[in-house]
Amino acid sequence: MLSTENENNPNRGGSLPKVRAAVDPLPEDSREFEIDEEFLDDLRELIQIRSTASIINILSDLHSPDIADIIDNLDSEDRLFIFELLDDETASEVLLELDEKVREDLLERLSHLRIRDIVDELDSDDAADIVGGLSDEVAERVLDDIDKEDSQTLKELLRYPTDSAGGIMATEFVSVNKNDTIQKAIQRVRKMLKEIGEIYNVYVLDEVGILVGFIPVRDLIVHNPRRRVYKVMESEFHSVDVLTDQEEVANIMKKYDLITVPVVNTKGEMLGKITFDDIMDVIHEEAEEDIQKFAGIAGTELVSHGVWDISRRRMPWLAIAFLGQMISAVILSSFHESLEKIIASAFFIPIIMAMAGNAGIQSSAVVIRGLGTGEIWEGMLVKRMIKESGVAITNGLVFAMSIFLVGWLWIDDALFGLVLGFSLLTVIASATVVGATIPFILTRLKIDPAVATGPFITTSNDALGLLIYFAALSLLYL
Amino acid sequence: MLSTENENNPNRGGSLPKVRAAVDPLPEDSREFEIDEEFLDDLRELIQIRSTASIINILSDLHSPDIADIIDNLDSEDRLFIFELLDDETASEVLLELDEKVREDLLERLSHLRIRDIVDELDSDDAADIVGGLSDEVAERVLDDIDKEDSQTLKELLRYPTDSAGGIMATEFVSVNKNDTIQKAIQRVRKMLKEIGEIYNVYVLDEVGILVGFIPVRDLIVHNPRRRVYKVMESEFHSVDVLTDQEEVANIMKKYDLITVPVVNTKGEMLGKITFDDIMDVIHEEAEEDIQKFAGIAGTELVSHGVWDISRRRMPWLAIAFLGQMISAVILSSFHESLEKIIASAFFIPIIMAMAGNAGIQSSAVVIRGLGTGEIWEGMLVKRMIKESGVAITNGLVFAMSIFLVGWLWIDDALFGLVLGFSLLTVIASATVVGATIPFILTRLKIDPAVATGPFITTSNDALGLLIYFAALSLLYL
Repeated sequence: MLSTENENNPNRGGSLPKVRAAVDPLPEDSREFEIDEEFLDDLRELIQIRSTASIINILSDLHSPDIADIIDNLDSEDRLFIFELLDDETASEVLLELDEKVREDLLERLSHLRIRDIVDELDSDDAADIVGGLSDEVAERVLDDIDKEDSQTLKELLRYPTDSAGGIMATEFVSVNKNDTIQKAIQRVRKMLKEIGEIYNVYVLDEVGILVGFIPVRDLIVHNPRRRVYKVMESEFHSVDVLTDQEEVANIMKKYDLITVPVVNTKGEMLGKITFDDIMDVIHEEAEEDIQKFAGIAGTELVSHGVWDISRRRMPWLAIAFLGQMISAVILSSFHESLEKIIASAFFIPIIMAMAGNAGIQSSAVVIRGLGTGEIWEGMLVKRMIKESGVAITNGLVFAMSIFLVGWLWIDDALFGLVLGFSLLTVIASATVVGATIPFILTRLKIDPAVATGPFITTSNDALGLLIYFAALSLLYL
Repeated sequence: MLSTENENNPNRGGSLPKVRAAVDPLPEDSREFEIDEEFLDDLRELIQIRSTASIINILSDLHSPDIADIIDNLDSEDRLFIFELLDDETASEVLLELDEKVREDLLERLSHLRIRDIVDELDSDDAADIVGGLSDEVAERVLDDIDKEDSQTLKELLRYPTDSAGGIMATEFVSVNKNDTIQKAIQRVRKMLKEIGEIYNVYVLDEVGILVGFIPVRDLIVHNPRRRVYKVMESEFHSVDVLTDQEEVANIMKKYDLITVPVVNTKGEMLGKITFDDIMDVIHEEAEEDIQKFAGIAGTELVSHGVWDISRRRMPWLAIAFLGQMISAVILSSFHESLEKIIASAFFIPIIMAMAGNAGIQSSAVVIRGLGTGEIWEGMLVKRMIKESGVAITNGLVFAMSIFLVGWLWIDDALFGLVLGFSLLTVIASATVVGATIPFILTRLKIDPAVATGPFITTSNDALGLLIYFAALSLLYL
């Protein structure tokens, strides 16, 4: 949101933002932009009549992330039309902010020369993301066309797994030798500022390129320019290996409040750096992924995905639930005598299933997230089990009592109420413990515990719950 | 993770880290620390025998967030013992990183004088968080004891809602007048560095305190020291109103990759600033909250919570599920004739419920998160409904066909198979659409859509699904 200096700004509330009035050192025309249907309709109309000048005027007034928001919400043709109106620098910034699906679509329709010009504008990490998403053929043509050194760097970056430190680092950073002076460091920053833009730390290397410390840029203006950097640098620092998983990098940066973290190889040589903005995206993405796994969506579903893409991502978990509940159907059919004898037993199938499912999801959610963020580790299994058992028994008893009363008063059969109560207690207890245990087991097997969630734990707990319920029923009634 | 310069570092792998060997400008002893049960057991032993010197040695070698991790995992007595060994500065850093529950417990057992000394070390935003968590009586005594100006600032900060920009901002920032020189700005940074520590931007105010621009600290070393700041400052900038919700602040900072954002009042006067590290915590917390709501946990359950606290947070959703499934039980009992006539109809209760529940959760998860992050907005309702209907019909048809075959081949009744297929198609379709619609309705009613998730949508879809299934059955068979 841009701050508004002038409360009576005439541009506020208009359906289309106007061009910035004048170039003046004092702000007078910044205002917030929020995309809505009305704005999009107006824009579509302008595109329809090919009113290029007006569109350029509108766009020149917006930040790149806002332009990306707009493009995300246009159809394929309009998208391309708008994008082709952007200069290379803006286009490069917009491309990075686009929804993955939209970016793919757009890149397929751009010439490799335009892509090359855009890639030229980007930092190495972003350039690698873009090139990595191109078809092999186009990627090769782009890599052939750009500066040889850049091309070399990109090829190296593309070798690292996408979700490793190497996959998200930028190779641009400012470094000095430990025997250099502060003055030299200041000169380096001045020189690199034109190339890099954002500089927070100057890294200090020894004679053979090993990272030995760093100096925050703000400290450069504090120290005597003639001092040697190793005398004033921070020699204790955090770094990550180039193959560290991005979630681990995010945990470290979040834990120690790091604005950047240097990426090193096993020898300790500095290869690149990761900045807070990359990590904010990672924290967001990882949480999004976990949420979608919980909700039973395979891969990552984006708002912009079409019907078929969405359907394809939701189908697998529905299929697992379908097959899992076939097991429940078989269990029920094997107890059909009990069902026929006490038809009321069927009335309580939903409640047994729902309590098993929910109790399991609750305990698994906490354990899975805890394992992901490092708050829970493998050695805590026993301690966690004891705690979860306590919770299971507490909650189980409350609902067991309730359902006993329901069974007794509604169905008018105290014995049936007892069976219901006993079953529900056992079901809640076992579902809670199963929900908390499975993530530990998967972690030990080096499988991402988040895959176990949602439909998977629910489905198995449903079947387990029904088995307990009907086994108890038939023991007592047959 | 601290980088390891020396691969053969003798401290690696030892169960307890040793004291850092020497104070040397070149690093030689940094290594990663990971908490585990063995370490905790050894530490507990040292606490048992009150081996204060060894414990101080161990702690002096660790970063504050690591010490916080350790304290989080000790019991109440050991916790206090360790904490009392820390100097005020370390104690203040550790306190901020502690699990909320552990912090509360610790603060209750510290003297108000110790709390005052710790609060004195903190930036205003962190100090306000700590004081805000104290009992009224202790808070008052602490506020009476600290510097009068600080006390005033804290009281003001405590008036803002905890999850607003005002609630998370720090009032410490470096500002200059727009007519000051770059030299003056450099002097301000030098002076404030001792007080503030982290400075990324110098804010530029006009004569009456209105924020008119900013200069990144790194730019100070680039410009001629005699130039006036308004000539070189960035005059277009993002700011947030002091009452903006923290999730909105996080979205803005993430979208525009901001390292800090100034907080202003309606007049445009600068009140404070919010930094990327606060926002990384917000992004994490908001995602955690959403995940827990999905999993049916009320409030926020922490790993450190005890049995009763956990039970209390999980009980409400279980109760909603319990009551909701009572409706399902009533629906089933009202169709008991169909159940008695075709006992096989009970076998498929689980599958109808599971498909309704899962389809609803899938569509609601995407809409809820989209509404939260701004990728989906209210005006998109119709467009979203069309898309979700497409998905619902596609997936519905696949599983309708499957269950038709099951009903036909297993139960040997093609008509029953048809009823099953028709019911499942209708159930999946309605559950998907209901799941996607409810979040829009709640947003319109200004209710956080995330409360609608998990057990709530699942439970209502379960009941709806069973109603459709048995209504279809009785229409055809009675």
